[in-house]
Amino acid sequence: MSKLLDNVVGELNRLPGVGRRTALRLAMHILKMEQEDVAAMTQSIDAFRNNICHCARCGNLSDSQICEICADPKRDSSTLCVVEQVADLMSIEKTRQYRGLYSVLGGVISPMQGIGPADLRIDLLLDRIAMGNVREVIIAISASVEGETTLFYLMNCLKRFENLKITTIARGIGFGDELEYVDEHTITQALVNRREVVKEL
Amino acid sequence: MSKLLDNVVGELNRLPGVGRRTALRLAMHILKMEQEDVAAMTQSIDAFRNNICHCARCGNLSDSQICEICADPKRDSSTLCVVEQVADLMSIEKTRQYRGLYSVLGGVISPMQGIGPADLRIDLLLDRIAMGNVREVIIAISASVEGETTLFYLMNCLKRFENLKITTIARGIGFGDELEYVDEHTITQALVNRREVVKEL
Repeated sequence: MSKLLDNVVGELNRLPGVGRRTALRLAMHILKMEQEDVAAMTQSIDAFRNNICHCARCGNLSDSQICEICADPKRDSSTLCVVEQVADLMSIEKTRQYRGLYSVLGGVISPMQGIGPADLRIDLLLDRIAMGNVREVIIAISASVEGETTLFYLMNCLKRFENLKITTIARGIGFGDELEYVDEHTITQALVNRREVVKEL
Repeated sequence: MSKLLDNVVGELNRLPGVGRRTALRLAMHILKMEQEDVAAMTQSIDAFRNNICHCARCGNLSDSQICEICADPKRDSSTLCVVEQVADLMSIEKTRQYRGLYSVLGGVISPMQGIGPADLRIDLLLDRIAMGNVREVIIAISASVEGETTLFYLMNCLKRFENLKITTIARGIGFGDELEYVDEHTITQALVNRREVVKEL
């Protein structure tokens, strides 16, 4: 087999979800692409890897020291939403409903994977709250065992701030979810947190 | 959103089978990779796209003008196997059972997709046979409408070579295929081409 092909298949094969067959298919696609389009792609990958940094205030991915969200004077700096990862922040941003700021932990506490509190950006969160402007912290981390551990740890860190409102996002049945297939824990939460229907509607 | 991230997601999103969500997941993985590993990957992509060529004799992908298979004196140059694409050649090579040479058409005739005989490497195949050494041509192209059209076209081109044996690969039930799920056409072919069981076995 051609060494050039072998190399590219081997390298693409290291990406998550890309087996040798998919790597070969990608290589064949790359072969059909214009040379400048391939160069644009590889340059964007290198530029991303070499130049992206984490926002010094919230941990979001950013081209500069402070991310666009933190630098935006129109955002409400009294509300902080704590998320696990940048992808979660992006999902919330897509709703266009949240106007506060974020704090991206960069993971959850997981003794199994050797991730402790010191591996997360908890100091960044605490420093920001200590500056005094924050009135509410919304904790939007996943409802897994690791997520609950992290929530517990955060609550312990945050209790020293008096007058700070701490909330978590609502658990319940998602739009389009069929009750038949929803797990018991979520249904229990949805029942416990049931809301009275407004009669005027 | 970060421009660097937006660029890389946009570029990866153009690859087949890579949606925006997968592109984002790949970008996050790239971020965790060592800088030199990312550079090795992008360099292998660029080197592949810019330097790979098609073997002047068979159309296989090759680092040099003549591919390793065609250049190998131990291969049987009296047998040519005609395949659609390089991936097919690689599948046959993996069996380690075939010791002849190849002719890679680079596709099949498909009026629907605007691919005519002139778009395929049929001349390369005919030139090679005209040199006189080839005694058998094995046509190993897919049994689709386009494949059958291509087979018909090839038969027409090849009939002028007397003493040239032309074969196609056997159609039948694959190992592990369940008869219940095999299409009627394949079952018909498998019945028509049934083989007597050797009693000594």
